[in-house]
Amino acid sequence: MRRILVVTFAVLLGLGALPARAQPAPGYGPNIPLEAARKILEAGIRDAQARNLAMAVAVVDTAGNLVAFGRVDGTQTASLGIAIEKAKPAVAYRRSTKVFEDAVAGGRNAILALPGIMPIEGGLLILHENRIVGAVGVSGGTAAEDGQVAAASLR
Amino acid sequence: MRRILVVTFAVLLGLGALPARAQPAPGYGPNIPLEAARKILEAGIRDAQARNLAMAVAVVDTAGNLVAFGRVDGTQTASLGIAIEKAKPAVAYRRSTKVFEDAVAGGRNAILALPGIMPIEGGLLILHENRIVGAVGVSGGTAAEDGQVAAASLR
Amino acid sequence: MRRILVVTFAVLLGLGALPARAQPAPGYGPNIPLEAARKILEAGIRDAQARNLAMAVAVVDTAGNLVAFGRVDGTQTASLGIAIEKAKPAVAYRRSTKVFEDAVAGGRNAILALPGIMPIEGGLLILHENRIVGAVGVSGGTAAEDGQVAAASLR
Amino acid sequence: MRRILVVTFAVLLGLGALPARAQPAPGYGPNIPLEAARKILEAGIRDAQARNLAMAVAVVDTAGNLVAFGRVDGTQTASLGIAIEKAKPAVAYRRSTKVFEDAVAGGRNAILALPGIMPIEGGLLILHENRIVGAVGVSGGTAAEDGQVAAASLR
Repeated sequence: MRRILVVTFAVLLGLGALPARAQPAPGYGPNIPLEAARKILEAGIRDAQARNLAMAVAVVDTAGNLVAFGRVDGTQTASLGIAIEKAKPAVAYRRSTKVFEDAVAGGRNAILALPGIMPIEGGLLILHENRIVGAVGVSGGTAAEDGQVAAASLR
Repeated sequence: MRRILVVTFAVLLGLGALPARAQPAPGYGPNIPLEAARKILEAGIRDAQARNLAMAVAVVDTAGNLVAFGRVDGTQTASLGIAIEKAKPAVAYRRSTKVFEDAVAGGRNAILALPGIMPIEGGLLILHENRIVGAVGVSGGTAAEDGQVAAASLR
Repeated sequence: MRRILVVTFAVLLGLGALPARAQPAPGYGPNIPLEAARKILEAGIRDAQARNLAMAVAVVDTAGNLVAFGRVDGTQTASLGIAIEKAKPAVAYRRSTKVFEDAVAGGRNAILALPGIMPIEGGLLILHENRIVGAVGVSGGTAAEDGQVAAASLR
Repeated sequence: MRRILVVTFAVLLGLGALPARAQPAPGYGPNIPLEAARKILEAGIRDAQARNLAMAVAVVDTAGNLVAFGRVDGTQTASLGIAIEKAKPAVAYRRSTKVFEDAVAGGRNAILALPGIMPIEGGLLILHENRIVGAVGVSGGTAAEDGQVAAASLR
């Protein structure tokens, strides 16, 4: 999973010396079941609490619909919606929200006009047998912290 | 409507039927913490599964913001949002959504113009020490089933 | 409905019942100034507090834009917006929101499709020298209580 | 952004400049009561009038819900809503709206995609005993003037 993700970023960002199309974005698989979503959610919440960060964690299915959600007590209000809004475009555009953040940071403001975009790190695809089964979104810390907790939730 | 309201609160508090106006709508207390919300969510999910019903369960805080959410696999898509939209007006209007359903059923169509209303059973206040700390919303079955699972989640 | 309208205006003006059509809907005058709006707001808040009711009070100008707003501590969340949403259509349709409530209660459900309607008592025109200068909206109690506090705010 | 954030909080708290990360964003406390909100509102209105500026001033609680609102006569219509829309994200994101304005001015356009953002100076947190109890939003002048009146309202 990690490998596919990294390659996807590299291709999108035009950074690597990787052959184009060597590894396309993964396709959609079945929807993540509640039990799997709950484990990701709980791993994210635990990781946030271990860092003493008040964060919201959301898991969505392949259609971007909410499967599981939780938040550490005291999480800032805006982050509740943003966690969901990071997971949704990750699935809909089949890439991490960091790809959008980096693109905008690099001057590609047109990205901001894409429907349902959230150009802040913290939204990651959930893959199973090389297919997308959902996404996780995290919000409440800095963009980098959100990304770290999202990654930790998938480990 | 006043009488229905009082009885609904009485049921929530486990006190049985009370004379009208004996018990005004409770005030807002602190926000429900994640741990308490998680228990309500899990009790609701378990009860839905025991009934073999595919349902979504949402817990919101005193501001109507999402605290915890889960859904049984295969829940119909519309019910994901409706579970949240039942919990929100329960808190905002300080009453069960069944009060709205009964009022509309009784011919009070003006209720339908109220902002953020969801006039279907299944949204219940969560009280702690006689104060509102949040609400639970359930959707996916009939209105009566939604109400039963919501009540079971609070037991 | 015209008859109801006229009587409503008559009550507003403190003139008692008048023959139908004896008094058409008043026209728009200048916008209510902040000082006058503040007095109405404070009179409404004081009256609500005297009744031990947690209510929101809003004053809007002839365009329905907010001039002054306040709420008793602990007012239910939904009532904050509803107070404003009662004042707006009072001005826009040049009549008390009770007129809408009575019409819907009488079976005229088509009223519910009117833009910006709020068919619940508690929105009253503010008149100065027989012209509309704004409206006050009150929410937080029963429809009748809302109407009483709105009337008290104009005395 | 972190540094600006900390300084903004430090100014609010009257503590002067602090080293970065010395002071994390404050947590949410209880909602500001009407009396305190009214004093802030009136101080803001008086300050605007003293500067001969037609401005709107809004005070919201920890959930971003309106507590008190007023406007100088003749305030431009758009500013009525903007005053509220500055106060809301200050609370929801636990920082001054100037932080957003500065970030966008510095090229961080991704900020513009955040939900409910208002990237113009004039929205400030209201703190009590180091906790967020609400926010004040001011609109009607230049961004700098809005910020000055907002600050004056809290003195």
